[in-house]
Amino acid sequence: MREKILDILLDNIGVYISGEELSRMLNKSRTAVWKSIKSLRNEGYLIEAYPRKGYRAVKNPDLLVPREIKRYLNTQRFGKVIDYHDIIDSTNRKAKEFGLQGYPEGTIVVAEEQNRGRGRLDHQWASPRGGIWFSLVLRPYLTPERAPLLTLLAAVSMIKGIEEVARVPVGIKWPNDIFLKGKKLAGILTEINAEMELINFVVVGIGINVNVHKDCFAGDIAEIAASVVEEKGEEVPRPEILGAILNHMEVLFDKAQKEGFSSVIEEWKNYDTTLGEKVEIHTTTGIISGRALDISEDGSLIMEKKKGENIKVRSGDLYLQSN
Amino acid sequence: MREKILDILLDNIGVYISGEELSRMLNKSRTAVWKSIKSLRNEGYLIEAYPRKGYRAVKNPDLLVPREIKRYLNTQRFGKVIDYHDIIDSTNRKAKEFGLQGYPEGTIVVAEEQNRGRGRLDHQWASPRGGIWFSLVLRPYLTPERAPLLTLLAAVSMIKGIEEVARVPVGIKWPNDIFLKGKKLAGILTEINAEMELINFVVVGIGINVNVHKDCFAGDIAEIAASVVEEKGEEVPRPEILGAILNHMEVLFDKAQKEGFSSVIEEWKNYDTTLGEKVEIHTTTGIISGRALDISEDGSLIMEKKKGENIKVRSGDLYLQSN
Repeated sequence: MREKILDILLDNIGVYISGEELSRMLNKSRTAVWKSIKSLRNEGYLIEAYPRKGYRAVKNPDLLVPREIKRYLNTQRFGKVIDYHDIIDSTNRKAKEFGLQGYPEGTIVVAEEQNRGRGRLDHQWASPRGGIWFSLVLRPYLTPERAPLLTLLAAVSMIKGIEEVARVPVGIKWPNDIFLKGKKLAGILTEINAEMELINFVVVGIGINVNVHKDCFAGDIAEIAASVVEEKGEEVPRPEILGAILNHMEVLFDKAQKEGFSSVIEEWKNYDTTLGEKVEIHTTTGIISGRALDISEDGSLIMEKKKGENIKVRSGDLYLQSN
Repeated sequence: MREKILDILLDNIGVYISGEELSRMLNKSRTAVWKSIKSLRNEGYLIEAYPRKGYRAVKNPDLLVPREIKRYLNTQRFGKVIDYHDIIDSTNRKAKEFGLQGYPEGTIVVAEEQNRGRGRLDHQWASPRGGIWFSLVLRPYLTPERAPLLTLLAAVSMIKGIEEVARVPVGIKWPNDIFLKGKKLAGILTEINAEMELINFVVVGIGINVNVHKDCFAGDIAEIAASVVEEKGEEVPRPEILGAILNHMEVLFDKAQKEGFSSVIEEWKNYDTTLGEKVEIHTTTGIISGRALDISEDGSLIMEKKKGENIKVRSGDLYLQSN
């Protein structure tokens, strides 16, 4: 019933519809109508009520509620199950639970805010309201060594979705940072659950500073973080961005599972800002210096340590070195 | 209170102790004593009651209950948290939940029986009563590529524990099978939860056919499965084997985290039956034929495909080929 009322009001934005009329259309009591309106308001929908006029929705809310996301989806599986939270500790944490519990591929966990959002290696990740914070459950047929390919795939999908809807220019810094004019706009945290030779499931966590205003970043983060709204000077509909990303991801993922990841790697290189550069990579086992040469077929970075000595690196903190 | 009654009865096996005496020793009502006895019996302890004589424990039960396991432990962390089940779907499934929930390293899930026990790649794994079926949560500081080292470590610990307590001769077939006179006695299923560059946690699942009688294996499994009781003709105390394995594992694990895995690899080779042999390995990405040469420092098998062409294999089904 809530859903039906919402449909009616959002299909007639700005137009008052009386409680009596709603109650007749739905064949429910006026009290039941009022209760539904109240619960929709609690969920964040802006619905005005005027005596003798009735109810009207003021505008399409910029919330990541399932109804809003689904308006923009043309997927078969991705985003069909949506677990929505106003606030959560970490969408990755919850999505890993879903993965274990056997939720289908394409299930997403999405939140308006995370209070324990994190990046690689437990680095803190600020997740204030106005961003897109979500995690996707994937069940690829893939060996665990090749999991970094999924981070590349997510990055390409994100950039396509962001450019399409927000129309801001973005680039990738290997392995998992999306930059806008030199500042971090978005990040990816890929986590696997696997046997030695096959992945059980993967959770791809994605965070994007969309409508996050500068003063909503705590402390010094504003110095290094970009957001779409700060770049454009106006807000951009988040459900539309999220929908676009999921649309691209499903297409790329299905193609990669059928034909391999070579076209993902090629597309990734179009947006890359690190290949060819002199870099230093801080990994969990040490620091590696050299030139970033290429992406290998398993998604690792190929580094030239010195002339003729190449090594593969799966992940790490990459710093550009001056030449 | 249950624990105290159990201690008293097991310290006086075969001796009757009256309900009145127990109630006086514990300063509890006789009804409370009776309820505790009932609950202990439900847990599988054989406690006899005779009018006017009282209660007596008949024998130390061969159950994998925490109390029995702890008698044999001299560990700091391994086996300090024990989640015991009479029957469970899969101890690995439950241990992975615990891993996500932040349970401490060394937590184990143990069951008398699994009804959805599984081996690598969802292969069925029979887990009837009389075996040891348990899973251990580890939190190593280790990159995911090196996870196969933990399977080697588990195999060495299992063999040491089994040989020490059961005194039957066992060997390893790479990567994860423990054999007794050509039949499979035990197996290991290692699963990781990881970011690209670091493991969050690992679950090592271990299954051993200890006191499983031939006719308790369903269908054709008896043809290929060994058990300790069939080999020796008598039952061997399972809690003692489990305790011995955990003792070895903690020592080996702590040493490996400090000094690396090279001594684990050396010990593993002492029990190995595959290195030097002509083998065929069926992996998720294809079949590899060649000679099993060595174990690499990340725990993979080094195979000589042809003269001078070596490759590393992380896991798979290994078949010995006739020369």
